[in-house]
Amino acid sequence: MSLGLRRGIASMASLKKASKVVCIGRNYADHVKELNNQRPKQPFFFLKPASSILAPGEGPVIRPKGVDLHYEIELALIMGKQVKNLEASDEKGAMDAIESYALSIDMTARNAQNEAKKKGLPWDISKGFDTFLPISEIIPKSAIPDPHNVEIYLKVNDKTQQEDSTELMLFRIPRILSDISKVMTLEKGDIVITGTPKGVGPVVPGDVMTAGIKVDGKELPESKIEVK
Amino acid sequence: MSLGLRRGIASMASLKKASKVVCIGRNYADHVKELNNQRPKQPFFFLKPASSILAPGEGPVIRPKGVDLHYEIELALIMGKQVKNLEASDEKGAMDAIESYALSIDMTARNAQNEAKKKGLPWDISKGFDTFLPISEIIPKSAIPDPHNVEIYLKVNDKTQQEDSTELMLFRIPRILSDISKVMTLEKGDIVITGTPKGVGPVVPGDVMTAGIKVDGKELPESKIEVK
Ligand SMILES: [Mg+2]
Ligand SMILES: [Mg+2]
Ligand SMILES: [Mg+2]
Repeated sequence: MSLGLRRGIASMASLKKASKVVCIGRNYADHVKELNNQRPKQPFFFLKPASSILAPGEGPVIRPKGVDLHYEIELALIMGKQVKNLEASDEKGAMDAIESYALSIDMTARNAQNEAKKKGLPWDISKGFDTFLPISEIIPKSAIPDPHNVEIYLKVNDKTQQEDSTELMLFRIPRILSDISKVMTLEKGDIVITGTPKGVGPVVPGDVMTAGIKVDGKELPESKIEVK
Repeated sequence: MSLGLRRGIASMASLKKASKVVCIGRNYADHVKELNNQRPKQPFFFLKPASSILAPGEGPVIRPKGVDLHYEIELALIMGKQVKNLEASDEKGAMDAIESYALSIDMTARNAQNEAKKKGLPWDISKGFDTFLPISEIIPKSAIPDPHNVEIYLKVNDKTQQEDSTELMLFRIPRILSDISKVMTLEKGDIVITGTPKGVGPVVPGDVMTAGIKVDGKELPESKIEVK
C-alpha cells in the first residue's frame, strides 16, 4: 500500500541507482577566483559515478593515500522525468523536471585534479573515488520554494568554511539543465549537482564536516549532512 | 521459466542500466603516437554516461553541430560481480569478475576533446553525447578464450581503418580492473572499455561503420556492429 504510494518517488536506494550524476564546475564567481580559474562562458560539466555516493550515516569519507582532499558543498537536483534538448528559456520545463532536492558534498582529490588539468587528462579519477559524494536525505520539492534563494553552508569542526546563497550561481538551473540535456539525455532519478560557492578547502581524517541548507534563515532538517 | 534461467545475466536492457561505463585512455602505443599524446605511466580512465549507449539497430550515431566526430573501436568487458581493490597480480580474480564481452565504439567529439585538454577541462562532454557508445550484442565469455588475443577491426564504408590485436594493450585487463577498482568499486553490470588501437579518424553523416571481432581469424557474429 505504502509501496504503491511511493512508487516512482526517489529514495536513498534509488539515488544510489542513479544512471548518472552530472556535476557543474565553476558556477560561483568567487569560487572561480579562489582556484585561479577562468570564468566559463558557458556551463561545463563532468560525471561522478554512482559508486561514489555516501548516504547519510554511511561515513566516513575515505581519503585515498597521498590525496589532498577538498570539500565542495553543492545543491543537488533529483530529476523526476526524462529531459532531452530542454531550451534554456523554458523555466517551467526545468522546474517541472525536478522531483526533489538534496544537499551534497563534491569531494575532490585536489592535487590529482590539478595534475589532470595541467596534463589535459580527465578529471574523473580525482572526482570519482568511493565515498566522494556524501549526500543528505531527500528534500521534498515543497521545502524549497525557490532553489535560487537558499543558503548552503559547510562547517569543518564547527568552523564555517562555506556559506552562500544559491542566488550567486553564474548559470541558473534552467540554463544548466538545458546545456546538459543537449549533450546527454537526463533520466528520471539522475542527480545534477550545481556547483560550489567560495570557501573550499582541505579536510583530514578525524575532521567532521557538517553541512545544511537554510530557507529564509531556517534550517531544513533533511538537508543536514554530518560526516567524518 | 526462461526468466529464472536468465536472471542476473546481462542483456541489452541491463547494459543500458549499467551503473557506470569506465573507459581506458591511451592503451595502445601506436594510437598514443597518432594523437601526439604522452604514453601513460599508469592506466587512466574516464566515464561515459549510460545514456550514450546505442544498442544494435538503434542507430544512427548523431553528430552534434560543429563536432569533428571520431570512432575508436574498443573491446568492452561486462562485469559479473562487484570488484573492489583488486590486486593487479590477481589474474584469476580479474577474469572471474568478467561476465561477458561486447564490442563498442567510443565515439569522441575530437575537437571538443582537444579544446578541453588544452584548457584543462573535463573530457566528459566530448565523450558523452547521446549515441556516442554504439555497442554490439553481448558476446558470451566462452566465445573469447583469451581477451588479450582477439582481433578488433573497424571499417568506414568498407575501408578498413582500424585492425589490431588486443595483445597490443599497454595495460592488460587485470591491471586495468585493479586500477579502476582501487578508485571506484565496479558493480555487476558495469561496462569497462579497454582502449583503442591506431587508426582512429573522422566520420560524417552518411558514412557506415562496420566493426567486429575475430578470434583465430574467425568472425564472432555477436560482435558485429553496423551503424550509420
Ligand atoms: Mg564541484
Ligand atoms: Mg572527465
Ligand atoms: Mg577510447
